[in-house]
Parts: sequence; structure tokens; C-alpha cells
Amino acid sequence: MAAERLTAIYHVTSDAAAIERHATGIAVEQSVEMPVAAIDDPQILSDIVGRVETITELAPGRYEVRIGLATATTGADVCQLINMLFGNSSIHPHITFERVVWPPGLAERFGGPRHGLAGLRRRVGVAEGAMTCSALKPQGLAPPALARLAARMAEGGLDMIKDDHSLADQAYSPFAERVRQCADAVAETNARTGGRTAYLPNLSGDLDQLRRQRDQARAAGVDAVLIAPMLVGLPAFHTLVAESPDVAFMAHPSFTGAQRLAPPLLLGTLFRVFGADATVFTNYGGRFGFSPELCRAIANAALEPWPGIAPCAPVPAGGMTLARVPELLDFYRPDTILLIGGDLLSAGDRLVEVGQAFAATVRGHRYATPVPAAAAGL
Amino acid sequence: MAAERLTAIYHVTSDAAAIERHATGIAVEQSVEMPVAAIDDPQILSDIVGRVETITELAPGRYEVRIGLATATTGADVCQLINMLFGNSSIHPHITFERVVWPPGLAERFGGPRHGLAGLRRRVGVAEGAMTCSALKPQGLAPPALARLAARMAEGGLDMIKDDHSLADQAYSPFAERVRQCADAVAETNARTGGRTAYLPNLSGDLDQLRRQRDQARAAGVDAVLIAPMLVGLPAFHTLVAESPDVAFMAHPSFTGAQRLAPPLLLGTLFRVFGADATVFTNYGGRFGFSPELCRAIANAALEPWPGIAPCAPVPAGGMTLARVPELLDFYRPDTILLIGGDLLSAGDRLVEVGQAFAATVRGHRYATPVPAAAAGL
Repeated sequence: MAAERLTAIYHVTSDAAAIERHATGIAVEQSVEMPVAAIDDPQILSDIVGRVETITELAPGRYEVRIGLATATTGADVCQLINMLFGNSSIHPHITFERVVWPPGLAERFGGPRHGLAGLRRRVGVAEGAMTCSALKPQGLAPPALARLAARMAEGGLDMIKDDHSLADQAYSPFAERVRQCADAVAETNARTGGRTAYLPNLSGDLDQLRRQRDQARAAGVDAVLIAPMLVGLPAFHTLVAESPDVAFMAHPSFTGAQRLAPPLLLGTLFRVFGADATVFTNYGGRFGFSPELCRAIANAALEPWPGIAPCAPVPAGGMTLARVPELLDFYRPDTILLIGGDLLSAGDRLVEVGQAFAATVRGHRYATPVPAAAAGL
Repeated sequence: MAAERLTAIYHVTSDAAAIERHATGIAVEQSVEMPVAAIDDPQILSDIVGRVETITELAPGRYEVRIGLATATTGADVCQLINMLFGNSSIHPHITFERVVWPPGLAERFGGPRHGLAGLRRRVGVAEGAMTCSALKPQGLAPPALARLAARMAEGGLDMIKDDHSLADQAYSPFAERVRQCADAVAETNARTGGRTAYLPNLSGDLDQLRRQRDQARAAGVDAVLIAPMLVGLPAFHTLVAESPDVAFMAHPSFTGAQRLAPPLLLGTLFRVFGADATVFTNYGGRFGFSPELCRAIANAALEPWPGIAPCAPVPAGGMTLARVPELLDFYRPDTILLIGGDLLSAGDRLVEVGQAFAATVRGHRYATPVPAAAAGL
């Protein structure tokens, strides 16, 4: 029986004369990484060495290359999967890693989101329609000040309040104390208003610290958290998800700067496969350079139907403004969490009212009908 | 007293009219990530918000920007340090992260290499001159075949034999069994020949698995290992180093594809600060695109005198050939480990003799005098 393979899809910049050599080079680099002629074991040649499946010209000088890699080489381990998919090839400036065609059951073995879009909706009691989110910042504030801010955002009726990803375990705002105070403040506000705002603290550090912080968050009544998979490391992220079935995870894109790993693949597919229930990405038209098409591709990768892998909620963010809410809702449609930080914090004394207006705008939005052509892909 | 700051140095592509705005944008993004006008706490404004220190034109449309970031925001934690240095800015295609100016004591708190170049020299009994290294591959071989290969490389007199970074914990070559057999094979060969070849197994996975593998390696008599910090995650790497003072760590560049993180910074400085005793990087003139200048900058960053931080051994690798050994020795000078994999494995039945020739060439090399201009920087 032929060894099972997954297909890794790369885009390669090359002249026509060299593309076959480049493609073979990737197949070898991402499997045995040695001269194939020096391999005399027939089973390794047939079952382990990578294979060029197709080479397709996308544009002059730009090609899609599909490589079949033996599933057995990945050991069904996050660390080794990434190593085999884009380890050494990540060092080649002419190669970007775009997509994976998963053999049956492989992605499912990693588990995907344990709660996903539906689980997040249940947590905050929003059965349909987009959800709202903001961020506690600036770092430097002590826990009482952050807790007061959280209370006002909850008062404003936001669905989710997350720590800014810069809030770690700094001396001026120790994790356990901050999380306890912010969680209490949100719970007290919810009890008073009848709201169901969720508070998501930011977990960081090594696996030991992540576990301690998760337990401290649980002790504070928290059941959803923020985490930056590329900062903590994909293996730590995946392990924490797998052993914390009660916790929902929102992924943050900090340190995902390996742009040659296509954002829809990393922020959409891979973070989802490894267990993100929601994924934050930098929105088009804000202070980052992502295009609408790229943002749509990320959202699609997070949401597209995938039997055995729950949908992951797309969370566009980064320099978004309240004025753009209607446009963004028509673009992302209802299966989304809108994350607005700075523009809400700029409201100062009017934060509660502006928060209420943000929530009300999202709740009351009438989605453009017919669906704008640009949004139909979602 | 003014809050202590570290200086992060970025290169920014921008037109002249926009560079001040870009620089301020980085200072805010990497600190409070919100409109500064919405911050009313004077201590946060003075002690936490990032500061543009200098903007220097490097070439038309290209600038060096120095940003002062408050040390307190990093919490002296690897994860948070990277988050503050290049978290969100890694997503901006116009920004590369080039260098850090460390305030006194900050880098030292991370510990740097515990063994470093000198410790590796002691392990293999090479007091001066370059050291030799090769890699066990291809993956797919079972432990007995890898052990036979290791024995022949040790017989050849190589100083170090490392697992290929593709060797993880796959079904066809489980970690514990492979490491035991390879370590035994090398130890038996050493006992017979009087050699001091070291075997470096490749550790991978999450922190739990890394610890198990480290312990299994120790049980097999191993005291030096290979690890890919960007695959396992920088926090896991640093924690493992800190709690394993008996083990020397050689860092592998797999998944370091964030090219906008300058290779001398990541592979040289940061891996060194976080504890790599040796750092593998892709050599010029092989199958990767690094220039001689870039390779020299990496080696310099790994070796340059730094009180409190031990030197880290540069390990050029990647498509290197035996024929190039004299050239590479004159380029890298004696404080280096030459890593040749495929070209040695291609020797087939003559592996032992070719290994001996490799080792003898390195031992017997007479370094060009005067030092070639290109090598003087080392």
C-alpha cells in the first residue's frame, strides 16, 4: 500500500528554466534533505522522499508547486508537522507556503477548535449576528484601573473584553491579581445589568506558566482566554488547548511576521486546526497592509465547512473605527467578532455610551441585501 | 529616576515625508498600541510609551529607526520580550527588526550560552582550531541503521554527529530507542578508537516532551543536543536551557523564515542570549541565499565579546562540500564548527575514509596569513 501523503502547496518565484529544479529541491529539502542518489533503501525512496505532484504557472516567473510529503514523517506532532511543511524552506526568500491538502483524518487528529464560533456565541448569549469586542490597555495601568475600564466596557454592553496582548505578568500588573480584579469587575457588572460580557485574559510564557495562568484564570471564573500562538510556540499552544477542554481560545497574531507563510494559512487554517476558537487578524483599511481580499481569505479559512473541525470565529482588528462598523458587518457578515480597541478608548469619559452605541450598531445592523458582491464569498 | 529602556533598531522602507509618522507608529505599536492622546496617566506617558530616539537615512527610501522601549514592559520573560520587540510590527512588510541595544544586565538575566564555544571544545577535546560535524539522515531509517551510520562517522573522526532536524519521534524511529542506539554506537566507537565524538540528538515537541527527551538523552549518556528554537517556541527553548545546566544546546534554524527579523539578530544574538551554545545557519554559496557578508555578520553576532554572555559557536551548514573546507576555514577562522551532511553521506561505502579526510583537512589546515581581508572581521 502506498504511504499516505499530505500535499503542501508553495508559491515559487523562478524563471521557467529553473522551476523544475526548484520544485525538486523543495521536495527533497522538506523530506530527506540529502542527495537522493545517496539513498539506497528502496522503502525510503518510495515512502519518505517528497514528490513533486504538479507545477503550475500562475504568472510569468511565478509558480504554484504541489509537493506530496509522507504523513509518517510528521509523527502527528505540531512541532514536526510544521518542520516538515515549512522548516528549512522558510529560509528561502523565493518560496511562500500557501496551503495544505490534508489527507483524511490528519487535521482532525489535532482536534481543531473545541468551542469555535458556536461555543463563543453560547458563552456570550449571542445566538446570531456579529459579536463585539474591545481591549484593555494601555499597559502600565495597575489592576484596579484596568478593572474599572473593564467594568465600563461591560456596562457598555460589549460581548467580549480581552486583555491587550501586551499585558503579560509585568511587575506593575501581575497576572493573577489583574485577572482576578478584571474578572470580578465584569462579573459584578453582568450581575447588575443582566449582561453576559466575557473577559479574556492574555496568557503568555512557557508551558508551565501558561498552565499556571490558565488555572488562575479558571479560579477567577474565566472560561475564555487570549493567546499568541507564535509567541508561546505552536506546540505549547496546541498542548494547552488539548488539555483545557473547558477553555475557549482566541488567537492573537503577534509575531506572525513570517509573511511568506500565507496569512490565510497561518491565521485561518493552521491556528484553527491547532485549536483556536477565534482568530484575531489585522483588518483591511486600518494601520496594517492587508487587503480586503486577503482578509476575506483569512475569514474563509477560519469558517469554511470542514467536517470534524469546528468553525473558528474571525476577529478583524487593528486600527478599526466605530464609524466603519456597518461597512465591516456587510463585509464580514454575522459570523464575526468585531474588535475595536483604541477608537473606543479614545472616547474617554464617554466610554460607556460609545460602547453601548457600538453594541447597538452591531445588534441593529441590517445587512445589505442583496449581499454585496465583495461579501458573497463569505 | 527615568525608567530603564532598551533600544530596538528597525529598518523601515518609507518615503521621506512619512518616515516620522512611521517611526512614531512603531513606538506606539510596540508599547501601548492605542492613541496616545487617550492616555491620561502621566507615568504611563513618561515611563511606558515607546520613544523615537533617532531616525537615520540609510539610502533613499530606507531608514534606520531607533525606538526606546521600557524594560519594565518586557517582564524579563522571553515571550514578552519578543512581543514588545517585534510582536505586531512583524506584520508590517515595510519593517525589518535589526538589532537591540541592551541595557546593562538585561541580556545577562536570560543567561546566554551555559557552555558556549569553550564548553563544546572541552566536550570533544579540541582546544583550538575548527571542529567538524555531520548529520544522521535520511529520516525513514530505523534506529539500527542510524546507529551504524553514527558509528562510521565516529570512526571517521568527526567531532560531532547530530541528528538531522527531521528526526523527531516518528513511528519508524522512536526517539528513545534511536538515541540509545546511536549514543551507544558512538560511545563504543570512541572507546575503541580513543576518539571523543559527541552525538547530539534532536529534541522536539512541547515542553513536557522536550523534558522527557532530554532525560532520555541523559540516560543514554548524552550531554549535548540539537533543538530548533522557532519550532519548539522561544519560551520552551529558554526554559529548557535554564533548567538543564549540564546540557549543551546547538540551535537549528528550521522555521526561522521571518526574514524581516534580521538573521544576525535572530540566529546570532537572540538564540545566543536565550542560551544556544552553538547556532546552525545556512552558509553562503550553498543551496540557500545568504551572502558571505550576512554569514559573517551572523558569526560575529554569535562570537563577539560580551561580558557575562559566553560566545556561541557558529555552525555554517546547508549544501556545503568537502572541497570547500579550506576556503570556509579561512573565512570563518578556527572558532567554528563545520557541518557537512549530504556531501559526506554521498561517500557511501567510503564514508569512514572521507570522514577521516574531512577531519584531517580541518586539523591540518594552515590558515591563510595574512588573514584575508574578507575574514578580518572575525
